[in-house]
Amino acid sequence: MGSSSRKPELRMDVVTERWVIFSPARARRPSDFKSKNPANPNDINNSRGGGGCPFCIGHEHECAPEIFRLPENEDDWKIRVIQNLYPALSRDIDPPVPQNPNNPYPRLSGFGLHDVVIESPLHSLHLSDLSPSQVGDVILAFKKRIQQLMQNESIKYVQVFKNHGASAGASLSHSHSQIMALPIVPPSVTSRLRSMKENYDRIGKCSICEVIQGQGNELLIHESAHFLSVVPFAASFPFEIWIIPRHHASHFHLLDTLMAKDLGGLLKLMLRKMSLQLNDPPFNFMIQTSPLQITDSELLYTHWFLQIVPQLTVAAGFEIATGCYINPVFPEEAAEALRKVNVP
Amino acid sequence: MGSSSRKPELRMDVVTERWVIFSPARARRPSDFKSKNPANPNDINNSRGGGGCPFCIGHEHECAPEIFRLPENEDDWKIRVIQNLYPALSRDIDPPVPQNPNNPYPRLSGFGLHDVVIESPLHSLHLSDLSPSQVGDVILAFKKRIQQLMQNESIKYVQVFKNHGASAGASLSHSHSQIMALPIVPPSVTSRLRSMKENYDRIGKCSICEVIQGQGNELLIHESAHFLSVVPFAASFPFEIWIIPRHHASHFHLLDTLMAKDLGGLLKLMLRKMSLQLNDPPFNFMIQTSPLQITDSELLYTHWFLQIVPQLTVAAGFEIATGCYINPVFPEEAAEALRKVNVP
Ligand SMILES: Nc1ncnc2c1ncn2[C@@H]1O[C@H](COP(=O)(O)OP(=O)(O)O[C@H]2O[C@H](CO)[C@@H](O)[C@H](O)[C@H]2O)[C@@H](O)[C@H]1O
Ligand SMILES: Nc1ncnc2c1ncn2[C@@H]1O[C@H](COP(=O)(O)OP(=O)(O)O[C@H]2O[C@H](CO)[C@@H](O)[C@H](O)[C@H]2O)[C@@H](O)[C@H]1O
Repeated sequence: MGSSSRKPELRMDVVTERWVIFSPARARRPSDFKSKNPANPNDINNSRGGGGCPFCIGHEHECAPEIFRLPENEDDWKIRVIQNLYPALSRDIDPPVPQNPNNPYPRLSGFGLHDVVIESPLHSLHLSDLSPSQVGDVILAFKKRIQQLMQNESIKYVQVFKNHGASAGASLSHSHSQIMALPIVPPSVTSRLRSMKENYDRIGKCSICEVIQGQGNELLIHESAHFLSVVPFAASFPFEIWIIPRHHASHFHLLDTLMAKDLGGLLKLMLRKMSLQLNDPPFNFMIQTSPLQITDSELLYTHWFLQIVPQLTVAAGFEIATGCYINPVFPEEAAEALRKVNVP
Repeated sequence: MGSSSRKPELRMDVVTERWVIFSPARARRPSDFKSKNPANPNDINNSRGGGGCPFCIGHEHECAPEIFRLPENEDDWKIRVIQNLYPALSRDIDPPVPQNPNNPYPRLSGFGLHDVVIESPLHSLHLSDLSPSQVGDVILAFKKRIQQLMQNESIKYVQVFKNHGASAGASLSHSHSQIMALPIVPPSVTSRLRSMKENYDRIGKCSICEVIQGQGNELLIHESAHFLSVVPFAASFPFEIWIIPRHHASHFHLLDTLMAKDLGGLLKLMLRKMSLQLNDPPFNFMIQTSPLQITDSELLYTHWFLQIVPQLTVAAGFEIATGCYINPVFPEEAAEALRKVNVP
C-alpha cells in the first residue's frame, strides 16, 4: 500500500482525546513467536458446534433464562436475548447507594445486568452471513433490550459489544453479542463526553458532525441512506471503522426500524469487506452511545456511533502505560483499501 | 481461594480514576477455544535462540546502533542499550511545532526516540534469573538513558516498559525492555495527574502516599528497605502488582544506586512469586513516572511506581469501549496468595 516510505506521525482523536502514533516502519519488524491470530479462529473444528454448544437451537435448556426471543413465542426462533450465566454484575443485589466523595477507597455493590444476544439459531452462521434485514433485526433486538433496561433508574449506561474470535476475547464461537447495563457511567464515556464538550465550546459544533462534514473523501469507505462508514482520522487500531448516523443523534436506542435495517446492511458490508481484506480477522464491535440520563446541553454535543476493531496487534506495555496506541497503517490507506474491496 | 462465593463489586482506583468490576463468577465460564496463553511462551523451541537472535552476544552487528553498554567498552557486556531497528517514532525528523488549538485534526511530526535495553547477553537468561544486584543494574541503565534523553527539550515524557511472552505483545523472546521518549505527555499520564491533583485538593495528600499509609496489611505483599509491593485496591488486572517507593518521589530517574539495587531485589522477588503462582505467565511491566517538566505544585501530588501486569485475560469489546476492566480476582485474595508463595 505504499505506506512504508512515510514518516511517522502523531494524531489526536478529538472525540476520545487520545494521541495515536502512526508508524509504518513497525509493520516490518520480525517475530520469533508463532502467529498470534489463527486465520480461522471460529473454525468449526475448534469448537463445540457438533453438539455441545449451549447457544445452538435445541439447547435452550443449557442456557441461563431467556429474556425474549424473535419472533416472539416461536420454537423456530431467529434471535434470543438471554441472561449471561456467568455475569460480571449481579441483577440480584441492591443497587449502589451514593458515596462519600472523600472516600479514598470508593466501592459500590456490583449491581447490574449482563445479557447475551444469540444472533442466529445455527452454529455455522456468523453475523455477516445473515441478510441485511436479519442483521437489522439483531440491531432492533439491542434497541428493544436497552428500552427495557432503561426502565430501571439505577442503570446509568448500557454497553452493547461483540467479541468474534479467540484473540478478540470470545470464549464461545457461536455468533453472539453482549449487553451490559451499568450502575455507573464508565470512564471512557465520561472522558469522551468531556472532550466532546470542550470541542463544542471551542468550535461550536458536535465533533462527530464535524467528522461527517469536514474530513473530505479520503477517509470515507461507504455511504448508505442514513449512515456513513469511515476510518477515523486518528484510528487507534489498524483498519478500525466507525459507522456514524448522518444526522445528529445522541442515543443509539432512538433509531427507528428503517434506520436499523439500513444500518444492518452497512454493518454487514463492513464486516464482509474487513473479512476479505484481512483474511477473517478476530474483531470486536462496540456501540458508543450516551449515558441514559443526559441534560439538554449534553444532547447538543453527543452523537452515537458504532466502532469496529479488527484485532491485528497486541496492546502491550507501551499502550497499557500510556493509553497511546501505535498504529502501523495510516487511516487514508486503510480507507482506500477497504473502499476497493469488491464484495461478491 | 474461596472467592467464588463473593458478590461482585465495583471499585474505583483514585490514581487512574478508573472503575473496575470484581467478579469471581467470571472465572468459571467455559471456553470452546484452545488456551490463549501458552504456558511457556518463551520456550527456547519457539524462538531463534539457537543462532538467529540479534540480541545475543556476538550478534551485535545485526542490531541497530548501540547507545551504551555496561560495563562500558567491554566486549563481555552485561547490558546493552541500543536503538530500536523498527522505531515507532523517528529520531531523524524535526521536533513538532506548537499547534493551533482549534484545529479539529491535530497532527504532529512523529519525532521521538525509541530504544531497546538488552538485559542479558545470553538468550537463556530472563530478567528474574539475574541476581538482585544485576536487576538493579538494568534499572540503573534505564535511569542513565532517561538522563540522556531529558537533555532534549522537545522530549516531554519517557516511557520504560517490558513485554515478556507472545501474548503480552513481545515479538522477540531474548530478555529485553524498551524506552520511548515522547514529544507529548501521553493521555493516561495526563489523566493520572488530573485525578491525583483532584485527590490532593480533596484530602490534602498524595494518592500514592495514601496507599502506603492508609490501606492496612491486606493488600501488602512484601516490604524492602526503600519500597513496598502491593496489589492495588482496584487492580485492573488479576494479580496486578505495584512496587512503590516508600518516600514521596515524583520521578523514577532520581533514584540513587542504593535504591536501584533494593528495587532490583524486590522486582526479582515479585517476578519469581508471580511466575511460581501463575505458571510463568506472559507479563508486562511499566514505570509510571511524571512528565519531565513539572511545576513545584505538581511535585506535591505526583509519585512514581512500577506496575507489573500478568496477562491472564483478554481486554475485549467491553473493556475497549468503556475503559472499565473486569477482574475475576479480588485484590485481597491475590495479595494473600502472592504473600504465601515460597520462593526457593
Ligand atoms: N450456557 C450459557 N448461558 C448463558 N450464557 C453463557 C452460557 N455459557 C457461557 N455464557 C456466557 O457467554 C458469554 C460469551 O461471551 P464472549 O465469548 O463474547 O466473551 P466473554 O464474555 O467470555 O469474555 C470476553 O469479553 C469480556 C468482556 O469484554 C472480557 O472481560 C473477557 O476477558 C473476554 O474474554 C460469556 O460471557 C459467558 O459467561
Ligand atoms: N535487530 C534489531 N535491532 C534493534 N531492535 C530490534 C531488532 N529486531 C527487532 N528489534 C526491535 O525489538 C523490539 C522487541 O520488542 P518487544 O518484543 O517488546 O515488542 P514489540 O515492540 O515488537 O511490540 C509489542 O509492543 C508494542 C509496544 O507496547 C506494541 O505496540 C506491539 O503491538 C507489541 O507487539 C521491537 O520493538 C523491534 O522493533
